Amino acid sequence: MEFLDGSWKKEVSSWDALMGEELLNQEAILEGAIHSIRNMGDVAFVIIRKREGLFQTVFVNEEVNFSIHDLKEGMTAKVKGIVNEEERAPHGRELRIREIQVLSAPAEPLPLAIDKWKLNTSLEAKLNYRSLSLRNIQERARFKIQEALTRAFRDYLYENGFTEIHTPKIGARGAEGGANLFKLSYFHKPAVLAQSPQFYKQMMVGVFDRVFETGPVFRAEKHNTKRHLNEYTSLDFEMGYIDSFEEIMAMETGFLQYAMKLLKEDYEKELEILKVELPDASKIPAVRFDVAKELVAKKYNRQIRNPFDLEPEEEALIGQYFKEEYDADFVFVTHYPSKKRPFYAMDDPEDTRFTLSFDLLFHGLEITTGGQRIHDYNALLKKIEDRGMETEGMEQYLDTFKYGMPPHGGLGIGLERLTMQLLGEENVREACLFPRDLNRLEP
Amino acid sequence: MEFLDGSWKKEVSSWDALMGEELLNQEAILEGAIHSIRNMGDVAFVIIRKREGLFQTVFVNEEVNFSIHDLKEGMTAKVKGIVNEEERAPHGRELRIREIQVLSAPAEPLPLAIDKWKLNTSLEAKLNYRSLSLRNIQERARFKIQEALTRAFRDYLYENGFTEIHTPKIGARGAEGGANLFKLSYFHKPAVLAQSPQFYKQMMVGVFDRVFETGPVFRAEKHNTKRHLNEYTSLDFEMGYIDSFEEIMAMETGFLQYAMKLLKEDYEKELEILKVELPDASKIPAVRFDVAKELVAKKYNRQIRNPFDLEPEEEALIGQYFKEEYDADFVFVTHYPSKKRPFYAMDDPEDTRFTLSFDLLFHGLEITTGGQRIHDYNALLKKIEDRGMETEGMEQYLDTFKYGMPPHGGLGIGLERLTMQLLGEENVREACLFPRDLNRLEP
Repeated sequence: MEFLDGSWKKEVSSWDALMGEELLNQEAILEGAIHSIRNMGDVAFVIIRKREGLFQTVFVNEEVNFSIHDLKEGMTAKVKGIVNEEERAPHGRELRIREIQVLSAPAEPLPLAIDKWKLNTSLEAKLNYRSLSLRNIQERARFKIQEALTRAFRDYLYENGFTEIHTPKIGARGAEGGANLFKLSYFHKPAVLAQSPQFYKQMMVGVFDRVFETGPVFRAEKHNTKRHLNEYTSLDFEMGYIDSFEEIMAMETGFLQYAMKLLKEDYEKELEILKVELPDASKIPAVRFDVAKELVAKKYNRQIRNPFDLEPEEEALIGQYFKEEYDADFVFVTHYPSKKRPFYAMDDPEDTRFTLSFDLLFHGLEITTGGQRIHDYNALLKKIEDRGMETEGMEQYLDTFKYGMPPHGGLGIGLERLTMQLLGEENVREACLFPRDLNRLEP
Repeated sequence: MEFLDGSWKKEVSSWDALMGEELLNQEAILEGAIHSIRNMGDVAFVIIRKREGLFQTVFVNEEVNFSIHDLKEGMTAKVKGIVNEEERAPHGRELRIREIQVLSAPAEPLPLAIDKWKLNTSLEAKLNYRSLSLRNIQERARFKIQEALTRAFRDYLYENGFTEIHTPKIGARGAEGGANLFKLSYFHKPAVLAQSPQFYKQMMVGVFDRVFETGPVFRAEKHNTKRHLNEYTSLDFEMGYIDSFEEIMAMETGFLQYAMKLLKEDYEKELEILKVELPDASKIPAVRFDVAKELVAKKYNRQIRNPFDLEPEEEALIGQYFKEEYDADFVFVTHYPSKKRPFYAMDDPEDTRFTLSFDLLFHGLEITTGGQRIHDYNALLKKIEDRGMETEGMEQYLDTFKYGMPPHGGLGIGLERLTMQLLGEENVREACLFPRDLNRLEP
């Protein structure tokens, strides 16, 4: 009988070993894809793409018994050779080729010049050839940055006593209501895709006190803008026993600080590739919704058209205002109007036209919506009634409150928007592996 | 201007502080839900439920200026009192109540006796009242165990150079084909919910070499069994540059060992609450599909009805066989018949009726399907043609191979099944917060 014990012997040198002292001037084996070939005649540079980066290998005609024409870009290979120091190589090291074992060969040459430092092609083409365009070093680096953000979110919340949950994406009704629901037939019953895990995370606050989820949400919005996706990844948390909704903002600030630290420590290479300057999350100003509108109206000579709504241009100007006045990258805008928030939002007892809620703007774009929720059963019923809503299909959500719930609140962060703003991208599709929009359902 | 700097002062004692030396015989403040009240007349035990566990507080009539009848199970409260050592209390500590500030009160008494050690009610009732039944300490502990498994999966793969990805759940077509697809209309275009991230993770192997995703998958299967869910969480990985499909099994074995270690170290409390005995993942036997069938047929005197299929009863017997013969909790069954695997599975060059693939059985139940995939473009086209399949809608998937892909493979683990087997549950619904099955779309 054969047994697996978790170990696996590979005759391949790790990236760290290639960079270390032990293999210097020694034989090493390197695995990866042939990213580019620069043929200078008797000598050729064969650049190998690995998950850690590019590694230069050198083909010298008289040192090997095969032709450079046997190699093609897009092949994957196992390369045996001698590790040399070489100042001009990307990491100060190169491999002088002795033997190559080709693992696979492409059927056709690549349609995109992925080996250029900057991939010069349209967003449309990049998305159509997603599995190829991301082989470009800059393009793929974005998604390592995105990984760091998700990872930081989870690790920070674990540290703070949160429990991770997985809630269903198919349900009988949506949490936010409205028209932006994708509908489907679930074994002949009408069903919808989750707009957010809102109801479920609240239900689980009564169980675990603090919960989070990182997962997809679905919005059938007919917007076709640079900042909307119809499916995106939401970083959601919900916490019980809060003294004030500012406690939620403090938790988010802590997460952002943790994320910047993780990026600096573990994702330095990608920050460098993309020339990302990390924003300052050490202290984040908080301003009331109505005050923010006035500040911006005054400074930029702009008329307030609707006192209960924030237009995208106003968001951008609030971002600009706080950058100019306080050198702030982030701004919490608090006390959103009640009529702009869902029924479960807690109204401000001091002025019920507003709520104990907030958005977080990052360089002038909303990346988070959060706030305190109603936890009292009768208050919740009254709000539902006042809005002329039906409780049908919400029985189990409402039961949660009937039998007792702590004061609580939470937020949802759009992962792609956070990534987009961190990278200084113009279009949120640049920060999504496989975006879904009004026109795009593939790849 | 107000600023958030990530810190938040709370006049509340942490669980660790309550258990530590400093607060002994001192005043402390405790927040939580009133889990149960045992009223003995002049003295009452008020058990507080917190995320960390139950904490005993003691009400003594003459020491406070309120009545025990002011308190109700299901309330949430801030309790001020003196920390005492008390052998008979759950953690050797109790709080002698001085003051209570009620944070919230239920509208009605709980319909379930959640304060019983074992919640004595049907699965149906538990699922109908999910946000209440999980307030039971044993019930909720299961999902901390589940958290540990997801967490271990990610941490182990991060350590091994994997990149986390987020792939779309709405797409134009399914990866596995067949009838078990949920269909929906996506802005008047026909679309389906993802059965698995298979195509996407393969496409990303060409970019990141190693990728993983933890997310929902959707199967419109009309099974109504104890081991099927129509939406579940899949722990998926895919790795490039493999020398053999056994490398995938080695990676999974490593993950399981890591998960058992994490459980032992960080989830001891929950293991104790549920009396879980951790399985042995130190070495896992691997047996060929056809050999396994024969071994079981012989030992248990069972006729082989179909040499190309494994019935659930056979899986259970294979589990039993390896427990009896090798004291093994897990078994890899390898070389599944080609006709039982999807088109992208790599056939065994030594006998193309079988594939370089495997299932992992845990106590006789399949919890993983994995294997090596075809990486050569022309081989892939040929397999599609041989099966009489259409390539329509797969263009971008196929392009990935046309332009070169390394040898690779991967697997998908059903998180709920893994949890279920670890806990020794009879029904997979016990291991899912909000299960979706043929009849259940709520809560």
